[in-house]
Amino acid sequence: MARAIAASERARGTTSPNPPVGCVLLDAGGAVVGEGATRPPGRAHAEVVALAQAGERARGGTAVVTLEPCAHQGRTPPCANALLDAGVARVVHAVADPNPRAAGGAGVLRAAGVEVVGGVLAREVARGPLRAWLHFARTGRPHVTWKYAATLDGRVAAADGTSRWISSPESRAEVHELRTRVDAIVVGTGTVRTDDPRLTARGPDGVQYGGRQPLRVVVGTSDLPPGARVLDDEAETVHLRTHDPDVVLAELAARGVVDVLLEGGPTLAGAFAGAGRVDRVLAYLAPKFLGDGPPALRDAGVSTVTDAVGLVVEQVSMCGPDVRVSAVASGAAR
Amino acid sequence: MARAIAASERARGTTSPNPPVGCVLLDAGGAVVGEGATRPPGRAHAEVVALAQAGERARGGTAVVTLEPCAHQGRTPPCANALLDAGVARVVHAVADPNPRAAGGAGVLRAAGVEVVGGVLAREVARGPLRAWLHFARTGRPHVTWKYAATLDGRVAAADGTSRWISSPESRAEVHELRTRVDAIVVGTGTVRTDDPRLTARGPDGVQYGGRQPLRVVVGTSDLPPGARVLDDEAETVHLRTHDPDVVLAELAARGVVDVLLEGGPTLAGAFAGAGRVDRVLAYLAPKFLGDGPPALRDAGVSTVTDAVGLVVEQVSMCGPDVRVSAVASGAAR
Ligand SMILES: NC(=O)c1ccc[n+]([C@@H]2O[C@H](COP(=O)([O-])OP(=O)(O)OC[C@H]3O[C@@H](n4cnc5c(N)ncnc54)[C@H](OP(=O)(O)O)[C@@H]3O)[C@@H](O)[C@H]2O)c1
Ligand SMILES: NC(=O)c1ccc[n+]([C@@H]2O[C@H](COP(=O)([O-])OP(=O)(O)OC[C@H]3O[C@@H](n4cnc5c(N)ncnc54)[C@H](OP(=O)(O)O)[C@@H]3O)[C@@H](O)[C@H]2O)c1
Repeated sequence: MARAIAASERARGTTSPNPPVGCVLLDAGGAVVGEGATRPPGRAHAEVVALAQAGERARGGTAVVTLEPCAHQGRTPPCANALLDAGVARVVHAVADPNPRAAGGAGVLRAAGVEVVGGVLAREVARGPLRAWLHFARTGRPHVTWKYAATLDGRVAAADGTSRWISSPESRAEVHELRTRVDAIVVGTGTVRTDDPRLTARGPDGVQYGGRQPLRVVVGTSDLPPGARVLDDEAETVHLRTHDPDVVLAELAARGVVDVLLEGGPTLAGAFAGAGRVDRVLAYLAPKFLGDGPPALRDAGVSTVTDAVGLVVEQVSMCGPDVRVSAVASGAAR
Repeated sequence: MARAIAASERARGTTSPNPPVGCVLLDAGGAVVGEGATRPPGRAHAEVVALAQAGERARGGTAVVTLEPCAHQGRTPPCANALLDAGVARVVHAVADPNPRAAGGAGVLRAAGVEVVGGVLAREVARGPLRAWLHFARTGRPHVTWKYAATLDGRVAAADGTSRWISSPESRAEVHELRTRVDAIVVGTGTVRTDDPRLTARGPDGVQYGGRQPLRVVVGTSDLPPGARVLDDEAETVHLRTHDPDVVLAELAARGVVDVLLEGGPTLAGAFAGAGRVDRVLAYLAPKFLGDGPPALRDAGVSTVTDAVGLVVEQVSMCGPDVRVSAVASGAAR
């Protein structure tokens, strides 16, 4: 399953609105004979990729999948049937399919005499590669990770507006890597005006990562400055002239976006946090003090301490010299 | 040495301006025959306490001490001589004595034929129980730990001024425990006006810890509100009518204070941070967002990001649901 999870993780950012599933196929003797991950929309699901590799060796073998195989006919035929056709004897999956249309793969397989074991490393998968997609399946809204880089005293820029670079090269490299795994990056018009960011996923050498770049999304009613870097052709950009996080999320869902990285600034992040639309927070806290400058979050609509937006810390670690805190909305903790 | 460090740690907060030293005595066969820590000023040093316990069994034995034994006559006779008189054959110490007047204990002992080994777990001791005293010995200024409780977005209170309770019961209990180990707690007049804190070390039941309470220090030119809790008789309080961190520290040094816990608020903390008088930061970050309210730090005199006050993270961990970050001033990192 760890290998299936790794395959699943590698597919992140390329499969939406489908889930980035990973599948490993073992033959009857337990040897690995196939491995696959979900292909881009309209193309093969993970199981089908792995089955194609395994060929006849799948017969009597075991499929290890991060998500319960689907049983419905979408743009591709149901995976449960493909597994049956290949003569797989056993299916081990992590997370059960929450999608009412797709669910039932385990039932179809069991009815045909296949042994099905669910729930294996389900928590790792649900918090890992399938987190955003499961959230989307449950709520109909893209999953929002608010990422920010602040000083230990919570400033995201200095009084003069300078914010390059608050966090370390290690943290910045990690964020670029993270960008390759999401569907869209969202910022407010204020950030475009102040920082003129490129919002692409780039390597430490400044060169864009190959492959798909996430959609760049700018939120706000004002026009973008002509010549703003987000208007270049390094990636697609949409400008949403609204202040309502739910309008933003509905528009993104309609475009097949499942996994959103909200990169600020404080006003837009405040609107999302205040509306309960921050599902996860990823804070890079640099061991510095500014004592002045814009705060990480503004206008979240909270005026008294007992109304604070609650989170649960999932992981705390170091990223170079910075402290990395990953926390999820209290409701979302499992 | 671990046992000597533990003894040293237990004496913290009771020995200033002397160092909280721990000493364990082993007999010639290696059995523990004595253990001691520095007594309050004017009373016995750690070695003497341990020697009194060991009596004749110290002869030919080993003294394990967190600090190089002193060689000078202060209010008590030099410890090096006491060890010689007791016939100790070997002295193992952690940190060398940085105090020019007291130094030379190792030399005196060696000259008398005692085997002396220094530097054992020196780093642990220098970052642990002797940190404040070593800083004081080096700079002549009390060591300042700025402790604050903030939300993940760096707010120390909500917009309406409410700050009870930002951090968890676990974090608050830890702070009360920490208060028992410092000499003084410092706040600004603003915090007294807004929060009316008691600033005593209390157990989870709200009852004051037995033993010495730290000195309560309020900094600011305005009068304290009559009836302010810091004016009760649960502990001594001084009001310093200044805005200058160095005046505060000089006044505290004159009172024998070595280890200071700066508990805010943001204005006073900003003044200390801006003046380079925050030696260590202990942040309790609650997994919450406020998006409004006073920031952790204000007016530190930094206007551009490259001038930010630099720190090095020493430790990151959880305290109940909160993230605890301990960081030291960049210069102080070893
Ligand atoms: N360190 C970091 O992680 C980080 C990340 C991003 C930004 N920053 C810093 O943040 C600062 C910019 O702050 P900012 O707050 O101006 O940036 P912002 O949040 O990106 O943009 C604010 C603008 O977004 C629009 N907007 C969208 N939804 C809104 C809503 N619900 N309510 C109100 N306005 C909404 C408004 O513009 P319209 O008038 O167009 O409607 C508003 O002026 C810069 O100093 C930048 O360096 C830091
Ligand atoms: N969560 C926490 O860890 C924590 C801890 C403490 C406070 N707080 C919150 O902080 C808020 C109070 O903030 P605050 O900034 O007013 O508190 P403060 O820093 O305790 O007090 C500010 C006052 O200190 C005096 N002062 C001393 N040195 C100064 C200097 N160098 N420059 C300017 N003034 C100096 C001034 O008063 P004079 O006019 O008397 O000179 C000033 O008004 C409250 O909401 C409280 O709840 C939170």
